[in-house]
Amino acid sequence: MKFELQHKDPKSKARAGEITTDHGTIRTPIFMPVGTAGTVKAVHTRELKEDVKAQIILGNTYHLYLRPGLDILQQAGGLHKFNGWDRPILTDSGGYQVFSLAGTRKITEEGVMFKSHIDGSRHMFTPEGVMDIERKIGADIIMAFDECTPYPCDYAYAKNSMERTHRWLKRCVDRVDETEGLYGYNQTLFPIVQGSVYKDLRERSAETIASYGRDGNAIGGLSVGEPAEMMYETTDLVTNILPEDKPRYLMGVGTPANILESIALGVDMLDCVMPTRNARNGMLFTSEGIINIRNEKWKDDFSPIDANIGGHVSLFYTKAYLRHLVHAKEMLGAQIASIHNLTFYLWLVNEAREKIKTGEFASWKNMMVEKVSRRL
Amino acid sequence: MKFELQHKDPKSKARAGEITTDHGTIRTPIFMPVGTAGTVKAVHTRELKEDVKAQIILGNTYHLYLRPGLDILQQAGGLHKFNGWDRPILTDSGGYQVFSLAGTRKITEEGVMFKSHIDGSRHMFTPEGVMDIERKIGADIIMAFDECTPYPCDYAYAKNSMERTHRWLKRCVDRVDETEGLYGYNQTLFPIVQGSVYKDLRERSAETIASYGRDGNAIGGLSVGEPAEMMYETTDLVTNILPEDKPRYLMGVGTPANILESIALGVDMLDCVMPTRNARNGMLFTSEGIINIRNEKWKDDFSPIDANIGGHVSLFYTKAYLRHLVHAKEMLGAQIASIHNLTFYLWLVNEAREKIKTGEFASWKNMMVEKVSRRL
Repeated sequence: MKFELQHKDPKSKARAGEITTDHGTIRTPIFMPVGTAGTVKAVHTRELKEDVKAQIILGNTYHLYLRPGLDILQQAGGLHKFNGWDRPILTDSGGYQVFSLAGTRKITEEGVMFKSHIDGSRHMFTPEGVMDIERKIGADIIMAFDECTPYPCDYAYAKNSMERTHRWLKRCVDRVDETEGLYGYNQTLFPIVQGSVYKDLRERSAETIASYGRDGNAIGGLSVGEPAEMMYETTDLVTNILPEDKPRYLMGVGTPANILESIALGVDMLDCVMPTRNARNGMLFTSEGIINIRNEKWKDDFSPIDANIGGHVSLFYTKAYLRHLVHAKEMLGAQIASIHNLTFYLWLVNEAREKIKTGEFASWKNMMVEKVSRRL
Repeated sequence: MKFELQHKDPKSKARAGEITTDHGTIRTPIFMPVGTAGTVKAVHTRELKEDVKAQIILGNTYHLYLRPGLDILQQAGGLHKFNGWDRPILTDSGGYQVFSLAGTRKITEEGVMFKSHIDGSRHMFTPEGVMDIERKIGADIIMAFDECTPYPCDYAYAKNSMERTHRWLKRCVDRVDETEGLYGYNQTLFPIVQGSVYKDLRERSAETIASYGRDGNAIGGLSVGEPAEMMYETTDLVTNILPEDKPRYLMGVGTPANILESIALGVDMLDCVMPTRNARNGMLFTSEGIINIRNEKWKDDFSPIDANIGGHVSLFYTKAYLRHLVHAKEMLGAQIASIHNLTFYLWLVNEAREKIKTGEFASWKNMMVEKVSRRL
């Protein structure tokens, strides 16, 4: 994997760059749609490429490991071949999911024992085992096995957890470096900064992670319930330490405003289930603000969902029609809203990239944060 | 509306023709996807045109009347403008739905009083009222308000119901002929033959319906639980009476085999929820036979869903991937299966049309009926 830093905004830490992988290039800053179980929910692969214009999508190691399972994925020739997405893929490590299975999981130095949410069967995830699983899934970018601490989290727990995450990282790095991709293309490992909201822990973690000199670095453990200001402060602190010549991935963030603020702090890659999950509940993110399409006020609004962002779906369907579909519980409602929200997110990061290139990002960002946050 | 009869199969009653409406032409025989509430479930409008290659879709008067309601449809400029489908639309009369609301509806000579399945509110459908509603929805072809008798149905009930349907037809015709379309294009009324499975009733009904000399004629009250042989015999009897120079629409039929047999009996238009409803349960109709995609045997079958029928979706996605999506209860599974099944149905009737044109329909039909009926 190669990262080229192309532009730096003069009035913020925002950057524009290009990541090159064996499945093609990614222009940063970039938002990555989440394809948990090998599908971005309710969105066809072709629409994801041609309408949403996604450049990279996520897969989820925990979900894919359980279903369809590694045998099927290997027989298919990896996740790209299985789901037909031939651009870059990133897999998380499954850590977030197994740690969320409170009561049914047990953490030891070796790894995490957990029960499947599908059939209750017992499984063990270790750093080495997860690297082997991510090899079999075959994403271009694979994430280290870490613990994402909850918020709030006391200092002692955050410190112990971070130190274990660092020890696990060493095991992940060793395993990845002594193995190869199974499908004839390269995979690269991103380590993850943890340390909850504690500055000294975050500093130590960022320094530790940076010291590995991997192709890219991630910031985890944020957007888990802490105030937005705390998330921004922590991100700011960490991006000051992570190397400038490597892409920085802020995991699980966020609202359109969160995304713009994070880009301003030097983040290059982001992912979040919000655009698709909220779409299924009728919440639309648009270039003019946030719409709850269920509301009465849209029932006779025959204007396009969003005429400003390009993309077939956002221009073709009207607000009144989408409201009808959502009220009638028609699947097409969730489909349209999902594509629209993702199209908007991709439009937003592409606009950010253009503004960085022209040096206008900082003022544009302040204007847009206000615009995209208001409720219509 | 204009109908041109173009080809007649030498060894069956199958015909190929072309219907011209103000929203474009329809090449017959044709299958019409059902878009109950203004959407063919789980299928985008663009996919319906470009992938499925649908030429005409159905809308349902009962459902559209209740939601989004006539005010919204009128403000939109009719159903075509509301849902963005700019090719022909046909609306049923809602009769089938309100008569199905057993226990909550009351039939009188005037019409049917019924309660909404959504909020329990009371409504009255009369022949004149339904014509006015179908004017407001704005389909190109609108169906008369009839009673679709259940099966089995005793002779006396079938006779009384049929006679009332005939009296209602007169009222429908009068109302349609004294009014005009609201949106600047023409709408044409199709009357419906009833009479359950009783030959003398069906003959009388077909003669009555034919005597109106409308642009097209429909056969209702079949595919409601009677044996397939009885359906074919009744269809055969009725198509012998209905005029040859008008399209014949067999309502609510059916399996791929039913469709081919009905075409052989001189039917030009068919509709059914089966391809979309069964898709949502994982049943696929293919050019090689019927697939239950949930079955274990497809888990590592990485071949396309159906490589023979054209269409992006059927060629792009594999059986193994679709099985995974259906098992994981991913919406995309229902989306893919729905598009595939509709693509197959449209492929099938187009193949039938080509075989009619070359005079090979009868033998091809016998081969295909066997092929598309087997379970893989």
